[in-house]
Amino acid sequence: MKLAVVGVGLIGGSFALALKQAKAVSQVVGVGRNAANLKLALERGIIDSIAPDAASAARGADLVLVATPVGQYLNVLKSLEKTSALITDGGSTKRDVIAAARQALGKGVARFVPAHPIAGAEKSGAAAASAQLFRGRRVVLTPLPENSSSDLERVEAAWKTAGANVSRMPADEHDAVLATVSHLPHLLAFALVHDVAQRRNSEQLFSFAAGGFRDFTRIASSHPEMWRDICVANRDLLLAEVKRFSSKLEEIQRLLDHPAELEKLFAEARAAREQWIRSS
Amino acid sequence: MKLAVVGVGLIGGSFALALKQAKAVSQVVGVGRNAANLKLALERGIIDSIAPDAASAARGADLVLVATPVGQYLNVLKSLEKTSALITDGGSTKRDVIAAARQALGKGVARFVPAHPIAGAEKSGAAAASAQLFRGRRVVLTPLPENSSSDLERVEAAWKTAGANVSRMPADEHDAVLATVSHLPHLLAFALVHDVAQRRNSEQLFSFAAGGFRDFTRIASSHPEMWRDICVANRDLLLAEVKRFSSKLEEIQRLLDHPAELEKLFAEARAAREQWIRSS
Repeated sequence: MKLAVVGVGLIGGSFALALKQAKAVSQVVGVGRNAANLKLALERGIIDSIAPDAASAARGADLVLVATPVGQYLNVLKSLEKTSALITDGGSTKRDVIAAARQALGKGVARFVPAHPIAGAEKSGAAAASAQLFRGRRVVLTPLPENSSSDLERVEAAWKTAGANVSRMPADEHDAVLATVSHLPHLLAFALVHDVAQRRNSEQLFSFAAGGFRDFTRIASSHPEMWRDICVANRDLLLAEVKRFSSKLEEIQRLLDHPAELEKLFAEARAAREQWIRSS
Repeated sequence: MKLAVVGVGLIGGSFALALKQAKAVSQVVGVGRNAANLKLALERGIIDSIAPDAASAARGADLVLVATPVGQYLNVLKSLEKTSALITDGGSTKRDVIAAARQALGKGVARFVPAHPIAGAEKSGAAAASAQLFRGRRVVLTPLPENSSSDLERVEAAWKTAGANVSRMPADEHDAVLATVSHLPHLLAFALVHDVAQRRNSEQLFSFAAGGFRDFTRIASSHPEMWRDICVANRDLLLAEVKRFSSKLEEIQRLLDHPAELEKLFAEARAAREQWIRSS
């Protein structure tokens, strides 16, 4: 089985490594904008060859994984218009990805099974790829009405082979859930670090930041272009989240005058988080 | 040397363990509200005996560490009014702590050397105490004009013996710096988790939260009463931080219409964080 990976970064590279390790693919062709990254992917055995563009990579492939930032999907999928290969992807937003696929592939959109592996990290590139990345992590498929059940099953099987727990969900529900638990926290972390970095005494501030700050801001080391594309693609739902969060901040500001209620809110948050950690 | 610890939690217990391990103290007396926690501290060898109140514990002590939530300082320090022992503390805010010390100790405030070990964790209680907690971590002293240099040096030596890097800073500067890099992030993390927990579909939301959310919200598992006291004590500076952060969020909302500038902000934040991580 031949796999083509468009965008051999953390997600694309890890998918290739995991399927190779499981002996589910015998040949991987990689495509990307960054020659040094592709060279590294070759050296690490993530890919076996480099193709000049997505169309060439897809020729003769059984499966194509699109794992570029979502802002590039329209162009990438247009160049896959003529391929007969099954296509899946690793994009963190799904409504925009599906719209791009419909525009680029027309009726061929039936061959595209949208997927989101919830296995991000602040590391990026082929250097960070790992055969273990998806092990025990969730992958959400947001199937299209046009997808055949056999194509859905093939894509589901590939992600399962990579180690993931696969589930299915409508694209709009997916984008709303991820806006809350992923996109908003990323925005907040980027905002805090940027604000600290812009101050006159930023050096002093960072020098007194400890483990709490480090973990809170870990996701602010994420890939800027990838997150630009996610935020723009999920703009409406993300804005609703920011608005909601701002209201919560206003509530908490008022509670600074009501210590017992403030403590109650903190205790409820801690209890909810502890319950989640225990159950996950 | 005899040490008295008022509040045998993460900070108090770790201080006792570290000084015992360094053979800098031969006897530790503990005081606290929670009998089960004190019993555990005895069992773990953190303390050697339990005193019924701070005044009794301080009798014959060379050094007293106050490590309760800062809201209890006024009462604790009042009961230390008659002791001649040197006193230091582990409170995360310093202006309020100093005001309480002046009110409680009068002229005796000269014996109180305020300290903040920047070594928090979301774990609390004697169960979480560790002799290694302060190793390589910062402890900030915010000396009073009344402190003698020999008392300052003794307190500094004790924290250094516990493994810390000790520095000095005015109390108002300390509280401003910590409002930015510690108190605000805690408030944001509590806010996000509470908001998610209160939604109808909270179970679904948590089930799709991954490593980024877990790290971002780790500090929302912190001690509710301790953080209530910190937020109330540092109310003015914390409110200024929340206001500033809200403006930054508004800026970012506008940038959702300007993807290139949004990416620039993300890239600047990432670069600043990476530089901090490298240098720390």
